[in-house]
Amino acid sequence: MSIVQTVRSTPLFLRAAWGEDTPRAPVWLMRQAGRYLPEYLAIKSRSSFWEMVRTPELAAEVTLQPLRRFALDAAILFSDIMTPLPAMGLEIQFNPGPVVARPLRTLAQIEALGLPEAREIAPFVEETIRLVRRELEGREVAVIGFGGAPLTLATYLIQGAGTKDYEEFRAFLRYEPVAAHRLLEKLTELSIRYLKAQIQAGAQAIQLFDSWAGLHDSATYREFALPYNRALFQALEGLGVPRIYLAVGASHLYPVLSELPCEAVSVDWRLSLEQIRPHFPGRVLQGNLDPAVLLASPEVIAREARRVLRAGLGGPHLFNLGHGVIRTTPPEHVAHLVETVRQFNRHSVEPL
Amino acid sequence: MSIVQTVRSTPLFLRAAWGEDTPRAPVWLMRQAGRYLPEYLAIKSRSSFWEMVRTPELAAEVTLQPLRRFALDAAILFSDIMTPLPAMGLEIQFNPGPVVARPLRTLAQIEALGLPEAREIAPFVEETIRLVRRELEGREVAVIGFGGAPLTLATYLIQGAGTKDYEEFRAFLRYEPVAAHRLLEKLTELSIRYLKAQIQAGAQAIQLFDSWAGLHDSATYREFALPYNRALFQALEGLGVPRIYLAVGASHLYPVLSELPCEAVSVDWRLSLEQIRPHFPGRVLQGNLDPAVLLASPEVIAREARRVLRAGLGGPHLFNLGHGVIRTTPPEHVAHLVETVRQFNRHSVEPL
Repeated sequence: MSIVQTVRSTPLFLRAAWGEDTPRAPVWLMRQAGRYLPEYLAIKSRSSFWEMVRTPELAAEVTLQPLRRFALDAAILFSDIMTPLPAMGLEIQFNPGPVVARPLRTLAQIEALGLPEAREIAPFVEETIRLVRRELEGREVAVIGFGGAPLTLATYLIQGAGTKDYEEFRAFLRYEPVAAHRLLEKLTELSIRYLKAQIQAGAQAIQLFDSWAGLHDSATYREFALPYNRALFQALEGLGVPRIYLAVGASHLYPVLSELPCEAVSVDWRLSLEQIRPHFPGRVLQGNLDPAVLLASPEVIAREARRVLRAGLGGPHLFNLGHGVIRTTPPEHVAHLVETVRQFNRHSVEPL
Repeated sequence: MSIVQTVRSTPLFLRAAWGEDTPRAPVWLMRQAGRYLPEYLAIKSRSSFWEMVRTPELAAEVTLQPLRRFALDAAILFSDIMTPLPAMGLEIQFNPGPVVARPLRTLAQIEALGLPEAREIAPFVEETIRLVRRELEGREVAVIGFGGAPLTLATYLIQGAGTKDYEEFRAFLRYEPVAAHRLLEKLTELSIRYLKAQIQAGAQAIQLFDSWAGLHDSATYREFALPYNRALFQALEGLGVPRIYLAVGASHLYPVLSELPCEAVSVDWRLSLEQIRPHFPGRVLQGNLDPAVLLASPEVIAREARRVLRAGLGGPHLFNLGHGVIRTTPPEHVAHLVETVRQFNRHSVEPL
C-alpha cells in the first residue's frame, strides 16, 4: 500500500484529531444518537436504557441511526459513562439520569468495590464496537469510544444522583480526602482497562467525559482530577488512537487543562474557539456551537455555525456542539447544520 | 453630628461596599438564614415557604436568626428572587425550587403579564425590612435587600422549573427573540420598582442575583442581559445604596461584567479573587469561599478562609461564600468561619 493510499484511507475525522489542519472540519455531534430521533424513540419504547446499552445489536443500531440520516464523519458508541460501574458491584439505574442505589460515603464501601478484569467489565460494549466497525466498513467514518473521567464518575457515585452543584460530593473531597483518592485510583484503573478493551475491539478514537470538572477551582482540580486524567491518558498513549478530553463550564480551568496529555480538547459554547486556542497551542479543538442554536431557524443555524467554523481556523478543528443535542431538536435542523459545516472550506474562507 | 461620628455610625459592611479598603473584611454569608439552622427548621416545620416570605414577623425573625448566633456584618432579607412575580399574575410554587404553573412560551402570554405599581408588588417585604431595621437599631449591621436579575427571572419563567442547563430557555432566546426582549423589559421595570421599594423601606444595600447568567456566551449575555442589568442599576444610582451584582459559573463573562454600573461584584469559588481583581479595577469584590469547605474540619476552614482573605487584599473586599450555605453545614463551623474572618487584619498580614 502506498503512502498516498494510506493517507486516503484514514478518515478525515482521525486526520484532524491527530492534528492535521484539514480543508474541511470533520463533524459529529454529541448525543447525535438519541431522543430527538423518531427511530431512536421507537427502540426506546420497547427497551430499557440498560437493555439498549447491553444488547450489542440494539446499541449498534442506535449508534448507526444518525449516520443513515446525516453525512457525519464519526459515529460514537451508544452507551453511558456509568456502563462499566456495575462490574465493580455497584447498582445503577437511569431515571432518566443515573441514580446510584447506595451512594458511596465511607472508605470501607470504597475498599469493597471490585476491580474487574478488562473482559469482565462490559463485553457487550466491545461487541457493539465490532458490529459498528463492520457496518461502517469502507465508509470514511471513524468510530469513537468513550468513558467517564474518574472525578466525574466519583461525582455520581458519592452524590448518588444528579443535582445542580453536587454539594455533597464537593464536601466529601474536603472531609474524606483519603477515601476520595482511593476511589479515584480505582476508577482510574477501571477506566484504563475499559478504554483499552474498547480500543482493542476497534474504537479509533477515545473521548473522556469529565462533565463535572468545571464545578471545581483549579487547586481542587489539580489535586483530585489532573493526576488521574493524566495517568489514564498516558496509559492510552501509543495505542494509535487520538485522545479527546471534554469538560463543561470549565472556562476557568483551561490553564490547568493544557497540561493534560491528550490530542484534542472539547469545549462548551461559553468562550469562542478563538479565545480558547491560545491555551492549547498546536492542539486540536473540538466544538463548540451552543446546542440551543439548533432550535432556531435554518438561517440562524447557518450563521452561528459559520461563526464557530471561522473561530476554529488557525489550528485543527473537529466541529461539534458545545454539549449534547437537545431532545426537542428537529432532525432536519441537524441535517442543515451538517451540510453547512461540510460546505465550509477552511482553506479559502471568504471575507465576512 | 461630627464627621467622625458619621463615619463611625456607618456600618463596616457599607464602608467596604462603597469601596473603602477596610482593615477588616466585613462578613456575611449567602443563605446565612436557612435550612442548616435548627431554629429555621422549627419555623419551616409549621409554615410553607410562601407563608414565611409573606408574613413580615416570620420573615424578619428568620432574617435575624443567624445574627443572634454569629457576629455577622450584614443581614440579608429572607425572601426569594421569585417573590415579586405573583403580582404580575404568575402562579409560582416551591418544591423546593421554584416551579412556574404555566411557563411562558408566547408573546401573548408575556403581553398579558401585569406591571404592578411599587406598593402592590410585595408590601410584606417592605414591612419585613422595616422590622429588621428596627431590631438592628444601634448595631453595626447593614441590611441587604435583593432581587433577581431579569435574565435569571426569565430563565425560570420560560423553562418552568429548575433543570441543569435550562435548554428550553436558551433555545427560546434564539427562536423567540422578540418575545424574550419584551419579557426582559417588563421584568426590568418590575425589578426597578421592587428594589426601589426595598430601599425606601430601609434596605441599605442591594444585591442583584443573576444566578444563571453563566449559562450564556458573552454575545448572548450582551444581547439579553447587559442592557437590562445596566438599566436596572442606573435606576438605583444616587439612592445611597451600594449595588452588588452576583453571577455564578460566569468566569468567562468577567470582561463583559466589568461594564456593569455597580459598586461590587460577587464571585463564586472557581477563580481566586487575585485572578478576578484585574477585571474590576477600583471595584469591590465579594466572595468567595467554596461553601463545601464549611463541611470540612475547623483547621481546613480556617486555612481556606485565610487563603481567600489574602487573595482579597489589594482592594476592597466583602467576605462571603462563593454560593449559599449548604444544608448539611454544622452551625458551629459557621461560627468558626466568622471568627476567623474577624480576626484577620488586612492591614498587617503576617507572611505565609
